[in-house]
Order: sequence, then C-alpha cells, then structure tokens
Amino acid sequence: MEKLLYAGKAKEMWSTDDPEVLRVVYLDQATALNGKKKDHFAGKGQAAKAISDLVFHYLIEHGIETHFIKQLSPTEDLVKRCEMVPLEFVTRNVVAGHFASRYGLEEGQSLPHPVQETFYKSDQLDDPFINASATTALGFATDEELKQMWNLCQRVDDLLLPLFKKAGMQLVDFKLEFGRLSDGHIILADEFSPDNCRLWDLATKDHLDKDVYRRHLADLTTTYEEVFHRLQAVIKEEA
Amino acid sequence: MEKLLYAGKAKEMWSTDDPEVLRVVYLDQATALNGKKKDHFAGKGQAAKAISDLVFHYLIEHGIETHFIKQLSPTEDLVKRCEMVPLEFVTRNVVAGHFASRYGLEEGQSLPHPVQETFYKSDQLDDPFINASATTALGFATDEELKQMWNLCQRVDDLLLPLFKKAGMQLVDFKLEFGRLSDGHIILADEFSPDNCRLWDLATKDHLDKDVYRRHLADLTTTYEEVFHRLQAVIKEEA
Repeated sequence: MEKLLYAGKAKEMWSTDDPEVLRVVYLDQATALNGKKKDHFAGKGQAAKAISDLVFHYLIEHGIETHFIKQLSPTEDLVKRCEMVPLEFVTRNVVAGHFASRYGLEEGQSLPHPVQETFYKSDQLDDPFINASATTALGFATDEELKQMWNLCQRVDDLLLPLFKKAGMQLVDFKLEFGRLSDGHIILADEFSPDNCRLWDLATKDHLDKDVYRRHLADLTTTYEEVFHRLQAVIKEEA
Repeated sequence: MEKLLYAGKAKEMWSTDDPEVLRVVYLDQATALNGKKKDHFAGKGQAAKAISDLVFHYLIEHGIETHFIKQLSPTEDLVKRCEMVPLEFVTRNVVAGHFASRYGLEEGQSLPHPVQETFYKSDQLDDPFINASATTALGFATDEELKQMWNLCQRVDDLLLPLFKKAGMQLVDFKLEFGRLSDGHIILADEFSPDNCRLWDLATKDHLDKDVYRRHLADLTTTYEEVFHRLQAVIKEEA
C-alpha cells in the first residue's frame, strides 16, 4: 500500500513498494506568503515538473548527483528516498525579493559575487534565516555537510546561469534542498522550477517565475510553459 | 569647538581638539524595541560605563586591542576615533531572546558551541540579520576582516565567560562592535555593558541586564550597580 508521506505546497510524496524509492506528484497548485495565499492552476504541476526534470537531467549530465530516478507520468516522478536536510539553500545573483527589502536595496542590482543564504525549514516559524554557526550548533547539518551543499549550489549556479542566459533569461536567484542517502551521502533533492527561483526575461525584464502569481502579473501555467520551451530549445541545441 | 557626531540610544559621541580622539558620554537612558520604548534612569549611564570600563580594562590586560584611552569623568571616556564597521557581532552561549523565538527553542538551553551571529546596523531596517556571504557582497567587511572580528569575539568569550562565572553570573550572550583605525587595523569599540549582553545570576537565574527593563523586572541602575560590584570584587581578587 502506498502511503502519503508528505503533502507540500506544490507536491506530494508517496511511498512505493521499494523502501528506497518515493513517488512525487506535482500538483496544480500555487501558494504564496508561506501558504496564506493558495490557488489552483490547471496544468501548472505538469509544467513545473517538465522544467524541473529538464534541469535535473542537465545537472546529472554535468556530474551533479540528484534524487531523480525516472518519470512515471507527466505529473509524477520516481525519486530516491533520502532524509531531507531541514534547510533551504538560496543562491542570489541579483538583488530581489526579501533580500532587497531586508537590506533596503533596489531590485535588479547585480551582486559582485553570488550571495548564499540558508533558511531553517519550518512553516510554523516562517522558515527563519539561519547561519552556519547556528546550523551546526542546533544539529541541522555538520560543517562538512554545509561546505558540500554550498559547493553544490555554486556548481549548479555555474551551470545554470549561462544555460538560462542562452535561453534569454536571467537567473536572479534560486532555492535548492538536499537529502542524505542511507549511507550519509548528500544529493540534490526537491526540484528546480520557477516555483523556487526567479527568472527575468533578459530583454524585457518580465518575470517568468512564481512572482507572476505573487504579484498578479500573468498566468502561471502559460509562463511556466514558456520557460520550458525556451529551455528545451537551448538544451537540444547544446546536445 | 566640540561637535556632536553621533547621538545613540544610550551614548553620545563628541569630537575633540584631537582629530584622532572622541569623547563618549554615557546617558541615563534606556531604550528597547529598537527605540520604540525609552525611559530615564538616574545613575544608569554611570553604572553602565563603570562596567564597560572594567571589562575593557580586563580585555586590554589580556591582549585585546580596544578604542579605550582614558576616563574623563564618571560618565565620560576618551576613545580612539575609528570608522565603525556597520555590524553587530552577537555571541551566544545559551539560548535566549530572539534566538529562542526565531528557532522555536526554550530559553536557558546551553549551546554545544557558542553561536556567532551578525546583524547589519540600521535602525530604519530594524538591524537585520546578515551572514558572511551577504556582508562581503554588500561591502560591509572583507572576508579577512570578518574572520578577525569573529576571532576577537571568540577570545572575548573565552576571557569573560569564566570571569562572569566567578562573579556568580552566567554570560548568556553579548554584542560587540568593531572599528577600523585610519590604517585599517581592527579594534574592539563601542562598549561592554548589560545594555548589550545577557547576564543571569548563576544560582537564582535572575536577570542582571537590560532584560530587567525590557521585561519590567527590577530597577535598572540598582541591577547594573550590583553587576559592577560583583565584577570589581572578582577582578581585584585576580590582580
């Protein structure tokens, strides 16, 4: 019997017959303001998953280990089961969103080097900002694990920044999550979709991510499909 | 002509005839909630300064460079002029205050190692939490300077934790600020008083710091005088 192990804002995780394998279902749902705003968008789950699978494939081909095993259906993947590290890793190439308001900066300013930030995953506490010192003191990850995960974030940024640029998009910032396999090995998990990153059109600066929903700018599914098609064209060209 | 260079919540900084020297005046004033709550306490400035001078002397004797030059009066010191680094460095030995509420922890829990946190000094932005990556990207300090300042925080903790313990007090957490001399050399500046640290009586767990004001527990001046006398007795004994 498959069991629902986790019901997230945009995904569900189900057990399978294999204890090492989970089934992920992408939902036609978007939330903002830590779940306080919630809406249904037909086709959004499929579009988000299509982008995430494309990006994960690209990363795997370039040597990044991820939880991805295979696609089951347009809205379902099989992934390796891992113990999730309870942290969100945000990498910022350009000032936007909370980072802008927190430090009184203007959106759109390029950063001299990518800024890496970690947040403790807790809906109840509104995912508070956390630094390395508190992370190790509270036992969420070791110093060595943190270094590995930040290193992976940097490699992902180095791979995706030029890829999105070729597809006419600026990768403003993105969030990654990691998991530990049963032997403690750290791999990239969760997803990479415009639910968890900011993408701006290089020419028009239009938002091509969840900000179109947060800020009521355009239809979410149409926007995600646009990102998918642009990205797919560039990856095909590279191959 | 002396000029008022900075009017803070509990101190004023005045220029002197010597461009390299400032005069600090400790005020009989306490604020909380980032200045939203403000009150007058006769003798508080003198008591805070007495503690800070005692602690800075102790640190200087143990090899820490500070801005302190000499006392002018019971409420005034002369200090070296330096360019302040716009960061607050908080070292936490025990869970308390914002750290407890931010991560949903109980106050009073010991930490397996001191937690070091940095905040960007900005009244307008409510002194937001900042990490090393953002600090260097926004140009507030270099990586090398950050390492130096965190190192100094650690040395101060190593010196003061046992000192306060001998005086019957638990040094729960404390805030330091640093300045750059004209040659770029980093020294400890600002102050060390119960305005900027948490001290709990080892036996009773009573608060012996600004929390007595924040939480309406006792008279501020009397409390600070008690801390001064305890600390003075222990330092005399050591000498």
